[in-house]
Amino acid sequence: MKEITGGVCAAKGFRANGVHCGIRKNHVKRDLALIVSEKRASAACVYTTNLVKSAPIKVTKKNVADGYASAIICNSGNANTCNANGIEIAEGMCALVEEYAGIAAGDVIVGSTGVIGQPMSLEPMASGMSELSDGLGDHSDLAADAIMTTDTVRKETAVSFEIGGVECRMGGIAKGSGMIHPNMATMLVFVTTDCAISPSMLQKALSEDVKTSFNMVSVDGDTSTNDMVSIMANGLAGNSEINDDGEEYEAFCQALHAVTVKLCRMIAKDGEGATRLITCNVSGAADDDTAKTVAKSVICSSLVKAAIFGADANWGRVLCAIGYSGANVDVDKVDVSFASSQGRIEVCRDGAGVEFSEEFAKKVLLADEIDIDVELNSGSCSAVAWGCDLTYDYVKINGDYRT
Amino acid sequence: MKEITGGVCAAKGFRANGVHCGIRKNHVKRDLALIVSEKRASAACVYTTNLVKSAPIKVTKKNVADGYASAIICNSGNANTCNANGIEIAEGMCALVEEYAGIAAGDVIVGSTGVIGQPMSLEPMASGMSELSDGLGDHSDLAADAIMTTDTVRKETAVSFEIGGVECRMGGIAKGSGMIHPNMATMLVFVTTDCAISPSMLQKALSEDVKTSFNMVSVDGDTSTNDMVSIMANGLAGNSEINDDGEEYEAFCQALHAVTVKLCRMIAKDGEGATRLITCNVSGAADDDTAKTVAKSVICSSLVKAAIFGADANWGRVLCAIGYSGANVDVDKVDVSFASSQGRIEVCRDGAGVEFSEEFAKKVLLADEIDIDVELNSGSCSAVAWGCDLTYDYVKINGDYRT
Repeated sequence: MKEITGGVCAAKGFRANGVHCGIRKNHVKRDLALIVSEKRASAACVYTTNLVKSAPIKVTKKNVADGYASAIICNSGNANTCNANGIEIAEGMCALVEEYAGIAAGDVIVGSTGVIGQPMSLEPMASGMSELSDGLGDHSDLAADAIMTTDTVRKETAVSFEIGGVECRMGGIAKGSGMIHPNMATMLVFVTTDCAISPSMLQKALSEDVKTSFNMVSVDGDTSTNDMVSIMANGLAGNSEINDDGEEYEAFCQALHAVTVKLCRMIAKDGEGATRLITCNVSGAADDDTAKTVAKSVICSSLVKAAIFGADANWGRVLCAIGYSGANVDVDKVDVSFASSQGRIEVCRDGAGVEFSEEFAKKVLLADEIDIDVELNSGSCSAVAWGCDLTYDYVKINGDYRT
Repeated sequence: MKEITGGVCAAKGFRANGVHCGIRKNHVKRDLALIVSEKRASAACVYTTNLVKSAPIKVTKKNVADGYASAIICNSGNANTCNANGIEIAEGMCALVEEYAGIAAGDVIVGSTGVIGQPMSLEPMASGMSELSDGLGDHSDLAADAIMTTDTVRKETAVSFEIGGVECRMGGIAKGSGMIHPNMATMLVFVTTDCAISPSMLQKALSEDVKTSFNMVSVDGDTSTNDMVSIMANGLAGNSEINDDGEEYEAFCQALHAVTVKLCRMIAKDGEGATRLITCNVSGAADDDTAKTVAKSVICSSLVKAAIFGADANWGRVLCAIGYSGANVDVDKVDVSFASSQGRIEVCRDGAGVEFSEEFAKKVLLADEIDIDVELNSGSCSAVAWGCDLTYDYVKINGDYRT
């Protein structure tokens, strides 16, 4: 497997585009994205567990119920959630894809991101569709831009990998930033691949993958109403279709995990207001659930996040977050270290502090990617979770997001 | 029942004091508090559910196991948690009370608050004990000051009430501010009363009370390692002891709830960096648990908290927090209003937005105490939770708390 360029257009037979159609009047950025496959593709999605669900999620569920899709349309600037006419708008977006790109409305995955509960009209999207559709090409970057809200960095990645001697490609784009605390899914992530795989194996691979990728990311503990990860596999690479478990399915899952983990790290690092990526690596757990629960509790702690913002080696807050996580942990056995490109420093052994150089700790914590390594010394299971620091800018961005 | 002055010294037979003994060398504030009862008192406590527990909590549990206590000693500036010699220090503090105030060490409730995992010595406390003990008197205010850490406002309250025709008094002090997300208890709260009540009824009253008082407060979602609420009842009011359920027990519980809710509101309003008290009132729930879960989810949402800081009527975030709370709610029936001393404004009906004046909403939300009223329209149960806004100062305080 190797990293390649091209994002969602890296795989054969996928074209993309993103335009500014004017959903938010006073905000000139691309706000409408389209990704199309030249061949009808196996499709799989996972969705938010929030009981308040965006209208696009309801429409997408219906459209991919048969396991296939050919296009993804997504707007930013309005979440299309808690709107009286939400379903009508989401269906309307699919109809626009049929009208302008010649893809059956029932084969369209539709997504929205932005403010919840704002009136929405189909008009700006209708007026932007011809530019969007006519410009379809090798433009993963424009599609990635168009789904961003408060993201500061475009998020795309791609890999190539081999299935049965045939070279396949997979790429993805993501929109992260705020309201990130996925549960069975994440903010918006669109993945494309030319690998041939059946819809049921594709759904199995995606549902398994999110447990150790997007479900292990948190920016602010708020599970969005619009979270969705979707993948389309059009089979144009020419491998023989993956229909069951085995070596080829495993290779596919590995490629998928490479793409999703890369996007996870990008989402966490570009969390609203974030200056640092925090990775919590938990090892020595008695079981997987314990490892995951502990890792997520640490990256979700406001106090840990604020300490990392201040480059303050306040490991007591890490212990505190482990203690209230709900996991059954022997806290007297816990070791904690901080690590980064600047080095590694042990700060806690057997649940109590060890002497360490505050100066060196500061140096380690001033890097922009920080690892918090937690060894539970109670077994052989492990987990990784990704988050970010809590900064003035998070408060600034969210104190006045709507107006 | 009426509000009176005097805090923990309002009840007959209680004296208190607070001094600066120098636990944090570079920080001149009172850091050691003592409260004593002239008569051995029924005592009850509830403690943090964090698996990482401060040493004082372990010692207090042992000392109140017989249902009685005569004094409370508490320091700020060091949490005495994750210290190798923690138990020795906590026992040492009780021994100091025996030596200087003549109260058996086994009758002492001991508490600590401050940084976790910092080396601690008994020395400053030993050197401050004679001043602390000699100055015992009507000094609830000094004791309240001495248990503060990043609190900006002293927290004390008291009421008088009647039991069987006899006037009783009850008062409390609290230390709140950060790491506030209690579960079976809260940060440090000390309550005293001269009402006569048996230890078992006192424990029952306290354990019931925290479910709708301190367990419904959150500042930052971090459950502290040192949370403790304790109450001493010395019986000096002269009522006949409350030994079972009935009218007198109910009157006692009402007085207790008046004291604890007052302290809850003070803790939430003085949350680290907070500029606004947020009260979430949930009604129309099918059961109590649903009401509580929804109310807590709303006040814990970083996005709701940041929106309130910005006086932004972003009700979609309230809906979102209800949706991911885990409670089984029909989101299409939910109504939301914001209210304050400036008025009341409905922003969401049946799960969708209603037109409202942004200008008036701003006016309502610029007050310093904001109510978020959530009507679930699915039953007759209700709950109240208290929190605060998320501000730049929360980040500032916690980005560099230790150093």
